[in-house]
Amino acid sequence: MRAVDLIRKKRDSGEHSREEIDFLVSGYTRGEIPDYQMAAWLMAVWLRGMSGSETASLTEAMLYSGEVLDLSDLPGKKVDKHSTGGIGDKTSLILAPIVAAGGLTVPMISGRGLGHTGGTLDKLESIPGFNVNLSLAQFRHVLKECGMGLIGPTKEIAPADKKLYALRDATSTVENIGLICGSIMSKKLAEGIDALVLDVKTGSGAFMKREEDAVNLAEVMIETGKRVGKKVISLITDMDQPLGRAAGHANEIAECIEVLNGGGPADVRELSLELSAWMFYLGERTKNVEEGRSLAETMIATGQAKEKFKQGIRLQGGDPRVVDEPGRLSQPRSHVQVLSAAAGYVCATNCEHFGIALATLGGGREKKEDAIDHGVGLQFHKRIGDRVEQGEPLATIGYNADARLAEAKTMIAESFDIGLEMPRKQPLIRRILQA
Amino acid sequence: MRAVDLIRKKRDSGEHSREEIDFLVSGYTRGEIPDYQMAAWLMAVWLRGMSGSETASLTEAMLYSGEVLDLSDLPGKKVDKHSTGGIGDKTSLILAPIVAAGGLTVPMISGRGLGHTGGTLDKLESIPGFNVNLSLAQFRHVLKECGMGLIGPTKEIAPADKKLYALRDATSTVENIGLICGSIMSKKLAEGIDALVLDVKTGSGAFMKREEDAVNLAEVMIETGKRVGKKVISLITDMDQPLGRAAGHANEIAECIEVLNGGGPADVRELSLELSAWMFYLGERTKNVEEGRSLAETMIATGQAKEKFKQGIRLQGGDPRVVDEPGRLSQPRSHVQVLSAAAGYVCATNCEHFGIALATLGGGREKKEDAIDHGVGLQFHKRIGDRVEQGEPLATIGYNADARLAEAKTMIAESFDIGLEMPRKQPLIRRILQA
Repeated sequence: MRAVDLIRKKRDSGEHSREEIDFLVSGYTRGEIPDYQMAAWLMAVWLRGMSGSETASLTEAMLYSGEVLDLSDLPGKKVDKHSTGGIGDKTSLILAPIVAAGGLTVPMISGRGLGHTGGTLDKLESIPGFNVNLSLAQFRHVLKECGMGLIGPTKEIAPADKKLYALRDATSTVENIGLICGSIMSKKLAEGIDALVLDVKTGSGAFMKREEDAVNLAEVMIETGKRVGKKVISLITDMDQPLGRAAGHANEIAECIEVLNGGGPADVRELSLELSAWMFYLGERTKNVEEGRSLAETMIATGQAKEKFKQGIRLQGGDPRVVDEPGRLSQPRSHVQVLSAAAGYVCATNCEHFGIALATLGGGREKKEDAIDHGVGLQFHKRIGDRVEQGEPLATIGYNADARLAEAKTMIAESFDIGLEMPRKQPLIRRILQA
Repeated sequence: MRAVDLIRKKRDSGEHSREEIDFLVSGYTRGEIPDYQMAAWLMAVWLRGMSGSETASLTEAMLYSGEVLDLSDLPGKKVDKHSTGGIGDKTSLILAPIVAAGGLTVPMISGRGLGHTGGTLDKLESIPGFNVNLSLAQFRHVLKECGMGLIGPTKEIAPADKKLYALRDATSTVENIGLICGSIMSKKLAEGIDALVLDVKTGSGAFMKREEDAVNLAEVMIETGKRVGKKVISLITDMDQPLGRAAGHANEIAECIEVLNGGGPADVRELSLELSAWMFYLGERTKNVEEGRSLAETMIATGQAKEKFKQGIRLQGGDPRVVDEPGRLSQPRSHVQVLSAAAGYVCATNCEHFGIALATLGGGREKKEDAIDHGVGLQFHKRIGDRVEQGEPLATIGYNADARLAEAKTMIAESFDIGLEMPRKQPLIRRILQA
């Protein structure tokens, strides 16, 4: 088998066999197939697409390029959630303690923020002492102790993805459903999970701006899960505006604690409960999703989820006192309000720009190497459909450096579209897709 | 400007500006743009195509990646011919002396054979002592002395093409009209020519099997020539069977000498005269093509073309005695005939397989590094439309090594399609395309 022939096959719209995909992925990971051949193949894939069978083969080849956790000695089913990302998207930190408290194991390997989106690892690091860089042995220990663990990528997990992703980034071959599916699913399946709940975001703050693209990606991931023998379902959820009121790092942790205390913004609470409910159901902890939802509510109401969160933080070296005393989380030096220039209704937001404004203030990364200011954050006071008067605050910026404050402030103000007609509200959970 | 953005632009069917193409080609030639980005761009070009304006920009960027000969101090117009290659395609060695004898300058930079096709340089090297590796200064000297020069690529000429071609070869992005045009035209225009006659082959022994593809390539090259201010015309000629009777190296030189002596196979003679005629006309040596044809015939009839060939051989270090004593050319040790298994008419040939059979016997290259046996050759006795009896010879193989003889013999026999109906003969020159 030769790489040049497989490139030609894909170029000419051929369908690869499992052996062909294995040859490409394992050869590339071992350094036997050079970057330039893989780059040509990736572009051919981008333009010609992959079948369901090819996507499943790619996912498995990437999965088995590294270590796959075997958590079969731990009690209960292993379940996880993956979100495609957005602004204020913090549900992982709420549902992990809920589901672990409910008796399942949640082995969560997450990512960092890049561009306009936040990352779970970055948010966790706003908790003093919290260590996301556990070895797989330490990760397994934490999971055994408390049923939840939240770490970053390790070199043992899906090394093909790390190498392929860097190449895709440099060759404009990132945004392809099959390649995205392979990247996400190979890493998630390497966690040794039985079931996965997907939260595919759509709207102005999501990677998939159009709902049909989100649905398409979700369907491919569900299909791939089915082919590799895992239970996968997907929610298609709204990202036309931030989730909840807080976007940042420390302030998002504070909002998670509010939800674990039984409060918090309605949308964050609703989505976290829905995702937890599906995890309980797919993890065979409850007979159906409704029972899953009520189990999740019980975990919050009884304080068990909150105690689980404290335990998880402690096991990963963090200061669990932040849960009862959120003031211990990093706070910004100053605050400034963004006021509405007009009276009317919030008709839409350019949600992606909130993330870019946050990064501008140091609360996000423009490049992979950038450091993050965990104290910086945005607090939103108005949601789509809300009435707003001229001069009324739309959002509050918490910041530490003045340098690009004016720029960020203007960007945030301009990202609210104020109109005279009250808009039709979109549901938070737009669709639920099952195999 | 960033390569990753230009890859994305072509991926999304965008049209590059001249500056963008310059950025890619010059950046790649200098080593600032890595192979993997160029590979992704090449695949995007392969699948999305290039406009006429992009193809002209690519050709010029590749042309100016190296030195462009300035032959303005030499007398007469500078003209060349390029053929897309086939089996027995030897006209360069006939028309160069004809046209140089007729008073124009023919600065010919040629290539080597690869796969099923022969190469002009390899054929020349079957003349004892002939040196195709002249420096540009030596080349200029030879051109000044005798009006014709035949050399191989030098590192000064179109270095972008050398680097790009190797990458295309490894990434299955060779067969694309715009990229082929850039590769051919950049090298030819670097010769400092005023006009170019193209011989685009079509048929079972050509790269372009379908006439419409050949016409398409020819049209793009003519259009590109026009955009860069050069006169370019193209013949579309038949390659459904070998040109002439000889395919190999030394035996093709012998056939060229036959034509320069006023004999030789009718098809080789016809095509050489037609190409020479167009070169005379485009080089403003004659008022029209008809006069060009009669000038070419005169150059043969008076022996001036033959004398020019001797002079050219001598100036490039070769033994000019081969022209009068072709027996001095390398001869094969043994001969064997390929006999017809049936009676009937030659209806078609799988012409490409003749070239592969020749390579099998050592008379061609399978890989770039392979050495060539210049004495090995095929001699064809039957052409399409000829009557053949069972047991009558179709071809004669001249060989030096027995190892793969049986394989080659079978391949040649099977490449003749013998049927009961006399086929319709195709004209040798199918079309003539002008700007």
